[in-house]
Amino acid sequence: MENFTDVKYILDGFLFVFSGVLVMWMAAGFAMLEAGLTRTKNNVTVLTKNIGLFSISCIMFYFVGYNAMYGDGNAFIGSISMFSGENAPDAAYPAFADFFFQVMFVATAASVISGTVAERMKLWPFLIFVVVLSSLIYPIQGHWTWGGTELGGLIAGFSDFAGSTIVHSVGGWAALAGVLILGARKGKYGKNGQVRPIPGSNLTLATLGTFILWMGWFGFNGGSQLALGSKVDIDGIAMVVADTNMAAAAGAIAAALLTQLIYKKVDLTMVLNGALAGLVSCTAGPDLGMLVAFVEGIVGGALVVFAVPFFDKLRIDDPVGALSVHLVAGIWGTIAVGIFNPDVTILAQIKGIVVIGAFVFIASFIVWKILDITIGLRVDEETEINGLDIHETGLEAYPEFKRA
Amino acid sequence: MENFTDVKYILDGFLFVFSGVLVMWMAAGFAMLEAGLTRTKNNVTVLTKNIGLFSISCIMFYFVGYNAMYGDGNAFIGSISMFSGENAPDAAYPAFADFFFQVMFVATAASVISGTVAERMKLWPFLIFVVVLSSLIYPIQGHWTWGGTELGGLIAGFSDFAGSTIVHSVGGWAALAGVLILGARKGKYGKNGQVRPIPGSNLTLATLGTFILWMGWFGFNGGSQLALGSKVDIDGIAMVVADTNMAAAAGAIAAALLTQLIYKKVDLTMVLNGALAGLVSCTAGPDLGMLVAFVEGIVGGALVVFAVPFFDKLRIDDPVGALSVHLVAGIWGTIAVGIFNPDVTILAQIKGIVVIGAFVFIASFIVWKILDITIGLRVDEETEINGLDIHETGLEAYPEFKRA
Amino acid sequence: MENFTDVKYILDGFLFVFSGVLVMWMAAGFAMLEAGLTRTKNNVTVLTKNIGLFSISCIMFYFVGYNAMYGDGNAFIGSISMFSGENAPDAAYPAFADFFFQVMFVATAASVISGTVAERMKLWPFLIFVVVLSSLIYPIQGHWTWGGTELGGLIAGFSDFAGSTIVHSVGGWAALAGVLILGARKGKYGKNGQVRPIPGSNLTLATLGTFILWMGWFGFNGGSQLALGSKVDIDGIAMVVADTNMAAAAGAIAAALLTQLIYKKVDLTMVLNGALAGLVSCTAGPDLGMLVAFVEGIVGGALVVFAVPFFDKLRIDDPVGALSVHLVAGIWGTIAVGIFNPDVTILAQIKGIVVIGAFVFIASFIVWKILDITIGLRVDEETEINGLDIHETGLEAYPEFKRA
Repeated sequence: MENFTDVKYILDGFLFVFSGVLVMWMAAGFAMLEAGLTRTKNNVTVLTKNIGLFSISCIMFYFVGYNAMYGDGNAFIGSISMFSGENAPDAAYPAFADFFFQVMFVATAASVISGTVAERMKLWPFLIFVVVLSSLIYPIQGHWTWGGTELGGLIAGFSDFAGSTIVHSVGGWAALAGVLILGARKGKYGKNGQVRPIPGSNLTLATLGTFILWMGWFGFNGGSQLALGSKVDIDGIAMVVADTNMAAAAGAIAAALLTQLIYKKVDLTMVLNGALAGLVSCTAGPDLGMLVAFVEGIVGGALVVFAVPFFDKLRIDDPVGALSVHLVAGIWGTIAVGIFNPDVTILAQIKGIVVIGAFVFIASFIVWKILDITIGLRVDEETEINGLDIHETGLEAYPEFKRA
Repeated sequence: MENFTDVKYILDGFLFVFSGVLVMWMAAGFAMLEAGLTRTKNNVTVLTKNIGLFSISCIMFYFVGYNAMYGDGNAFIGSISMFSGENAPDAAYPAFADFFFQVMFVATAASVISGTVAERMKLWPFLIFVVVLSSLIYPIQGHWTWGGTELGGLIAGFSDFAGSTIVHSVGGWAALAGVLILGARKGKYGKNGQVRPIPGSNLTLATLGTFILWMGWFGFNGGSQLALGSKVDIDGIAMVVADTNMAAAAGAIAAALLTQLIYKKVDLTMVLNGALAGLVSCTAGPDLGMLVAFVEGIVGGALVVFAVPFFDKLRIDDPVGALSVHLVAGIWGTIAVGIFNPDVTILAQIKGIVVIGAFVFIASFIVWKILDITIGLRVDEETEINGLDIHETGLEAYPEFKRA
Repeated sequence: MENFTDVKYILDGFLFVFSGVLVMWMAAGFAMLEAGLTRTKNNVTVLTKNIGLFSISCIMFYFVGYNAMYGDGNAFIGSISMFSGENAPDAAYPAFADFFFQVMFVATAASVISGTVAERMKLWPFLIFVVVLSSLIYPIQGHWTWGGTELGGLIAGFSDFAGSTIVHSVGGWAALAGVLILGARKGKYGKNGQVRPIPGSNLTLATLGTFILWMGWFGFNGGSQLALGSKVDIDGIAMVVADTNMAAAAGAIAAALLTQLIYKKVDLTMVLNGALAGLVSCTAGPDLGMLVAFVEGIVGGALVVFAVPFFDKLRIDDPVGALSVHLVAGIWGTIAVGIFNPDVTILAQIKGIVVIGAFVFIASFIVWKILDITIGLRVDEETEINGLDIHETGLEAYPEFKRA
């Protein structure tokens, strides 16, 4: 170390390492949240799916996805080659550090999908979908935005700091495409439109998962400053983490107050999803100050309380509420930047949301459909009733506990 | 970045971000510890309370508490205004970074209270108390100490590095005031003075919570060095984290050996609380070397083993042992600085403990009393017997597991 | 801070603090993994053991182990004295920071042993073994390698970046010595060589433990770069964490695919152990690029799938598979450096593995044997059948849940 350029290089690289560790930790949060909000008979499959999707995302992004997203190519897609790890001659940070941080984001997008299709999708078709998502679907739309091409100018002006759209609603659109083909869990909806609640089996675990995600989000949003080695950058990071925390808190309290008002009881699962929706809501613009974060979070938390029954009304069965949290709040958070950031127009935000949403939904729908036709997405009825675990994994999550 | 002043600014700011993330994580630790040490029928309420108290603390400290603590004003209280986030012209670190770190401390104080009043206090009165605690009670006494006024010189010379008194025993005094009004859980104490043990429902979770708190405490104490950008500071931080770890280890082993000697069995819950008491014990003086930390921890761990039955003898029912850990060991840790730090007198420490304790206890007692008279603190008998969850939240923590 | 030497000092010290916190967190991972893969009736003992072994390791390494490992002395052992904490005049980083990081490694080695001897070893003999391990056995072999003596040249050229051998297989050898004396759990092996599966009681917890270990390993391997304050170092750290993540992912997927092929079902416990084996496999050489990490991980994950039934065939009963993960993959990872690093010979690696393995196995065997003869290692038959918890701790992990 001999000059300030070196110091900046080190600090910028370290921010990616620090933040990447935190975002990796979100994988555990998603796993605990999904296991806690589903039934014990499906939990081993849920856990296997989560560790599997994280692993596959990391492997495929290395072999294909990273360069498809960040490599040179055309306006639509980067280069088809594997990540080399080599630093450019004038690199501002280690290439591996950037990879380590970015790879965690594709895993996050994949995690979002997992919850929505839980309790009735087969393990392997899901994991194959993740192969395509992390190799192509996610990187292609990431190429347009963080990769810098603006899709040849089509989505110029679109602003998404840490990925309300580029990560969270991408996961949401892919999940929506999947669930439309997959259908609802047996018994979730009655013939006359009744909605049967299927309670999560382990709410301590679901709460732990939420706290893990909340913690990890400081890396998700804070690391998206992309540099630490200047006063402007640390000022930015500090505001981003303070904003992120505020939005989560606001989302949780909004959901708590609303469920108390509407249902006369505080619904913990709504509070958890409210906090997460607050986090998603401030992910596109976590750099706009704590008052904006407060508003982003309040609206996000409130949206979840209405979105969950709305999806049920449409008979779109989402066991963990991931569509409400990541798709609905993701859209809101992206539009919020158009509202609160004077340099960004609402129109540009909507254009980005629509273009990316359409691409991801259509591409995902095609892949899910091919998987459904070839190997089938859904377990058979008997497996679903007895639980996926016996058939898919041969293990039980809690073999010693008597079930009620 | 152009000079060493900039580098120092960045590093000092980053210390707050890094440490704030760790202290935020302690909220999850408190939640898991409390859920693990209480009964399943109250667990959803416990979880809702913990995520709620954290969220409220963060919101109120932003709107009121931070400036009441650190703003100009008089010797008693700072300014009544919301946190602006603006850096002073000659700021040594980003204002948001300091906020992000400090806000986690008020949440910690609030978490301490939660465990003591568990299993019979209503959710909303508790959360309203947290509004007052995080807006006024905690900031006012913090204004005297970390805010720098010494209460007009009344508690001059008082030394509390990371908050054995200012955070932990503050939580403890507020909890004590609450529990005196609230009373014990039904059936905890027999007519002839018998103490009925009410075992925690999930000791794996309680252990996880302890490990989380242990980890988070490295940020709690380490970050309280308040700067990273000098050799003296990193030397200080390194000693602090090594000391903190040692005190926790010593507390755990002291409790393990003592319970083995006294009860002929190692009591895991005592070991967990012993580790936590070790942590609290070294929080006022984690900068005095590892041998001091070892002694602080040993005494703290031992104190818990005697304090828990002592409170039971007084019929003060504390389901998780928070008074023993945070109040008793908090007082011990504060006095320990007077013993082991030649620059600090025991008298000054006791004066600080008494003044802060008296203020927090009285202020809290008044607030709890008002809440008790107006909306009532305690759930009705039927709710307590059936569990708070059905009434307060309508959910069960583990709906599928048959209860013995 | 006045010059770049100071900046380097601060950053190097901070790397140890950051990484030490992550490695400490692995203790929670080991505890959750072991509790999740054993039966509920033994879980309180498992948890007590894990928090106890961590605490003892930290205390003994301070009083004896650190200087026995790093102090001057002879080629065999360092100095017999306690850690002073004093910086050398020309220290490159704070002594306490180095201690904080290194102490977590001895705790990791001790954690490895815990799982293998679970469900039938008494608590206190185990903890006494940890006293000897952390004071002498671990530090002595560490003195030869990271202490720099090469055992008088006997193991010259041996290369182990973060401890595939020095930490993980050391734990494995000590565990193997213990289990040979201890024997298998009652009922694990039938008279005609049948192997009865004893399913883990809580696979959500085991999965959480794996994610925790995965996260902590970024500090374990990344911190083993031992410096952050240069471009070369941050380049190194960035590659190390990217490699570490890749190896874990590859190990998980290898185990998933193999169990699907062999057993027609994905075995979650194998996937978890596959990820951990991937991590162990890349620990000796996490600095060789992501393609090497991918191969290290794939082989490590595959080895576990075959090693677990292999140990069962030998009637070596290892409830959590720690021998397969830490010993087998630890040996593989060490040899892998000889294969993939042109500066290291396979022969030098094998010499190191054999010398260290022989020493640790023999020394451990002697200590276990003395403990067995004097106070006895194994609980009596009734205790084992009823569960260790009632006898050793008097508590139940889940007192409210009805057992099947």
